[in-house]
Formats: sequence, structure tokens, C-alpha cells
Amino acid sequence: MTKLKPKARSRLEVDARRAQLLALGLSLFGSHTYEEVSIDEVASQAGISKGLLYHYFPTKRAFYIAVLQEAARDLMERTAVNPVLPELERAKAGLDTYLSYVAERGQAYFTLMRGGLGSDPEVAQLIEDTRQRFLSRIFAGLGLETPPAKLRVALRGWIGCVEAASLDWVQHRDLSREEVCDLLVSSLLALVQHSF
Amino acid sequence: MTKLKPKARSRLEVDARRAQLLALGLSLFGSHTYEEVSIDEVASQAGISKGLLYHYFPTKRAFYIAVLQEAARDLMERTAVNPVLPELERAKAGLDTYLSYVAERGQAYFTLMRGGLGSDPEVAQLIEDTRQRFLSRIFAGLGLETPPAKLRVALRGWIGCVEAASLDWVQHRDLSREEVCDLLVSSLLALVQHSF
Repeated sequence: MTKLKPKARSRLEVDARRAQLLALGLSLFGSHTYEEVSIDEVASQAGISKGLLYHYFPTKRAFYIAVLQEAARDLMERTAVNPVLPELERAKAGLDTYLSYVAERGQAYFTLMRGGLGSDPEVAQLIEDTRQRFLSRIFAGLGLETPPAKLRVALRGWIGCVEAASLDWVQHRDLSREEVCDLLVSSLLALVQHSF
Repeated sequence: MTKLKPKARSRLEVDARRAQLLALGLSLFGSHTYEEVSIDEVASQAGISKGLLYHYFPTKRAFYIAVLQEAARDLMERTAVNPVLPELERAKAGLDTYLSYVAERGQAYFTLMRGGLGSDPEVAQLIEDTRQRFLSRIFAGLGLETPPAKLRVALRGWIGCVEAASLDWVQHRDLSREEVCDLLVSSLLALVQHSF
């Protein structure tokens, strides 16, 4: 028992430090380009040595990917909506949260989806996995495990619509979030109604 | 007069050779991955020396980009539809041609839009310019020069929808082109109706 304690505490410390670094990364990569964020700055803001930072994340790219994974997890968690709500209300609530998330991190979203970084195979896979998770969630919400082909193509298309509309919106910011949300819900309804 | 003739003939020859190489590139990159296409193979199939090929395109990447520019030009030309048709018929006809084009070049489309190549800044710009040209054409078709913000976001979203649905469709090929076309037209109608 006494032998286990230090190991358990150390694991807790490791997890807490990692969480602190990821939170810092979310904030830094959310407001600066990938190039602008330096490992020196991260270590300095975290109040740790570069050596210790490298112990957690061996490269800046590894750090960035871990931050993206954390952002994707966070986004999935935030957009999870009350399953007792009617389908349309769930879609609206989830989409509204997604758009808030995108609006808060406009530059980071743009860099991720249209910049060079989306091309990194690991980053591209992460984006694709996140799309797939959204898709599975929508299917589950509709009580479908294996969706019909038409609905799959329709919802894949809709996710592409959400991404492209979001990208245009965060660049121009000349519509309210509610207007973008309504627009995208109207497209979802048309696609789903046309898929059955 | 006699002095000009050889020069004029030579320009024609240059243009014809360039067109031949681009047509060959469209065929090769349309059925093979970027990595699979070698400069040796291109030169051999064109019946010219590698040296002459490099005279037209200094690198494989330069050749690939020129081929993409040619594909984009070709796509814009093919999807241009008779302006006397009603708007909805024009949208359907243009979309149907787009989907045929994508279906014929499934692997190339996938590599371009989801592979590492879309990340090359020049390639990314070319994709973005093509989207912009489609957008301008749709606006012009609606008699609008500067579109209202809502319609711009809606149509940007719709182009994203077309791309994402096309990508899913060319991977699975479990719907007819007509079904995909109808689905996307229903989404376009909903988005446009919701934008005014």
C-alpha cells in the first residue's frame, strides 16, 4: 500500500501537468498561427523547463497534434446534447455550440481546415475521425446503426456544408450565429427529408 | 514575312506539344496516384526525351500543377450551361456534369481533396480559385454581382456539401449519379430559399 502511493501520486501529477499544457496549447494555438507558437514560449508560460516540456511532448508537432486531439474531444463533449430533446432541437443545439466553438477559434479553425496543417497525414486523419464521430452520433440519434447509402452521402455532404459555411463565416463575420445556424438547419432538413 | 514564319510555326508546335503533354497528364494523374506517375513514364508515353519534357515543365510538381490548372479549366468549360435554361435546370445540368467528371476521376479527386497534395499552397490556391469561379458563376446566373452575406455563406456551404458528398460517393459508389444529383439539388434549393 505504502509502496503504491508515490507511484499513484506521480501519475496524478503527470496527468495534471499534461492537462495544464494542453489547456495552454488550446489557448496559444487558438489565437496564434502554428509558426508563431514557439516551444520556448510554451515552456515559459507553463513555468517549466524546455526539458520537462519535451518529456511530455517530444516535438512541437507532437504537441500540436495532442492539442488538436484535446480540442476534438472537447468539441465532441460540448456538442453532445440532451437525448430527450426532439431530433431537430438536438441538431440546432449541437450546431449552435459548434458554431460558437468555431467563432471563438476562428484563425485556428481556418489554419486547420484550409492551411497547410490539414495536410499532415496525422492531422488529416484526426479531422476525418472527428467527422466520422459526428456522423455516428447523428446516425445513433436517428436510431440507425448502418445508415442507408443515400442518408450517409447526404450527411457527409451536410458536414462538408457546415465546414465550408463556417469557414466563410469566420472570415467575414457579417452574419449572426443564429442566421448561420438557421441556414444550416434548413439544409440538413432538406437533405434528410430527401434521403428517405 | 519569311523570317516570321518559322517562329510562328515553332509557337504552334510548342502549344501543340504542351497540349499533348497536359492531355497525357490528365489521363495519367486521373488513373494513378501522384507517387505512381514518373517523369520517365511521361516522357516515354509522350515519345519525347526527358530533357524536352523538362523544357516544358521543370519539375514533376510543376507538371502536376499545370495538369490541375488544365483540369480546372476543362471542368469550368464543361459545366458551363446554356444560359437560356431556367435556373434550376442550369444547376442540375452543371451539377450532373460535375459529378460525371468526379466519377471518371475518382482516385485523382480523392487524392486532390483529401490527400497530402491539397496542402501544397499552390494546389490549395487552385482549388480555392475554382470554388470562387463556381461561386461567381452562380451569382452571375442569379443576376447578382455582390451577393448578400447570407447567400454567400449558403452557397459556400453548398459547394462544401457538393465536395464532401462527391468524396463519399466516389469511395462507396452505392448510389446512382442521378440520386446524388437530386440530393444536392434539394440542398441547394433549401439553402437558396432560406437566403432571401
